[in-house]
Amino acid sequence: MSRVTCDLTVSLDGYVAGPNQSLDEPLGERGESLHRWQFEQREASAAEIAGILEAGAYIMGRNMFAGPGPGPWDQGWRGWWGEEPPYHAPVFVLTHHQREPLAMEGGTTFHFVTDGIESALAQAREAAGDRDVAIAGGAQTARQYLSAGLMDELRLHISPEILGGGERLLDGVGDVTLEPIEARGTGLVTHVRYRVQR
Amino acid sequence: MSRVTCDLTVSLDGYVAGPNQSLDEPLGERGESLHRWQFEQREASAAEIAGILEAGAYIMGRNMFAGPGPGPWDQGWRGWWGEEPPYHAPVFVLTHHQREPLAMEGGTTFHFVTDGIESALAQAREAAGDRDVAIAGGAQTARQYLSAGLMDELRLHISPEILGGGERLLDGVGDVTLEPIEARGTGLVTHVRYRVQR
Repeated sequence: MSRVTCDLTVSLDGYVAGPNQSLDEPLGERGESLHRWQFEQREASAAEIAGILEAGAYIMGRNMFAGPGPGPWDQGWRGWWGEEPPYHAPVFVLTHHQREPLAMEGGTTFHFVTDGIESALAQAREAAGDRDVAIAGGAQTARQYLSAGLMDELRLHISPEILGGGERLLDGVGDVTLEPIEARGTGLVTHVRYRVQR
Repeated sequence: MSRVTCDLTVSLDGYVAGPNQSLDEPLGERGESLHRWQFEQREASAAEIAGILEAGAYIMGRNMFAGPGPGPWDQGWRGWWGEEPPYHAPVFVLTHHQREPLAMEGGTTFHFVTDGIESALAQAREAAGDRDVAIAGGAQTARQYLSAGLMDELRLHISPEILGGGERLLDGVGDVTLEPIEARGTGLVTHVRYRVQR
């Protein structure tokens, strides 16, 4: 069976986003700095970037699709990624608001799932076939799958930035046992893969 | 000039010790589990363990020497490490209580410094000669040197444990810029060396 993976970039003090997230600054203050490794040194982290993009289906939380707050959800919002999102695969968005599937260019179709994380996973597995299902984020969605024992591999990309505030990835995640299976670094990030033990 | 280094083991959620530190449990609940890499797989992390023990002088906080609370400080306390502590070098203990130097077996002498972190560093540099000065801990002492711009290299040993509470290393450390210079992992820990930029 395909695996359930999750790639997340965190600050050295454990934040996935800085303080004061907003529509203008969806990653919060200084949150963009966490992702320098994906933009400034793509070659140095080519394998990890490829790993993020190779899943057969993705699952994301409502905030990752539409941002915090009431926002533009009911106004024909088509995501943050322009007309050709980078997923090139079905993306299952967890939400309480029903909506018809939204087909974008390049193979990405957003499906809106209103009956919970297990249903989203079943649908994503079906869509992914033999390929992996990736939990795309945000942190709250990742925590839900991790806490529920529904994730096989957590891949942390640990930035050297110290944000000092914001949304922490692992707070309240509960009793989870992780085993490091691979670690390597560049001048901008430390990549660590963890197997989630059941 | 010799460098100022600091080795610290942290949980994946950023804690150096679990909740409810006490004389019986100086690392707090489940805090001992962070250090499994130093006891269960010494060979796999031999270089890092050697790195911890090669300094020419050490600096530690009062709590690391004597534990939290009023404790046994004035009762002839000789540290946690038995008659032959593992430092084999001068150790400068930051405290508000004057006390005569305490010579132990194997070359460790505890010196008690009452006039602050810069004085302790000057004395440790003098004692270390060409060798490095290591900030031995605890977290509060490490933060003080880091925030004051007096540390050259921070070496984090990131355990896969999630403690969910306790004392966090980097909370309140302020505006510090770190550059990862080496990362590698074992099945129990991820070792990352950071250069502290001035």
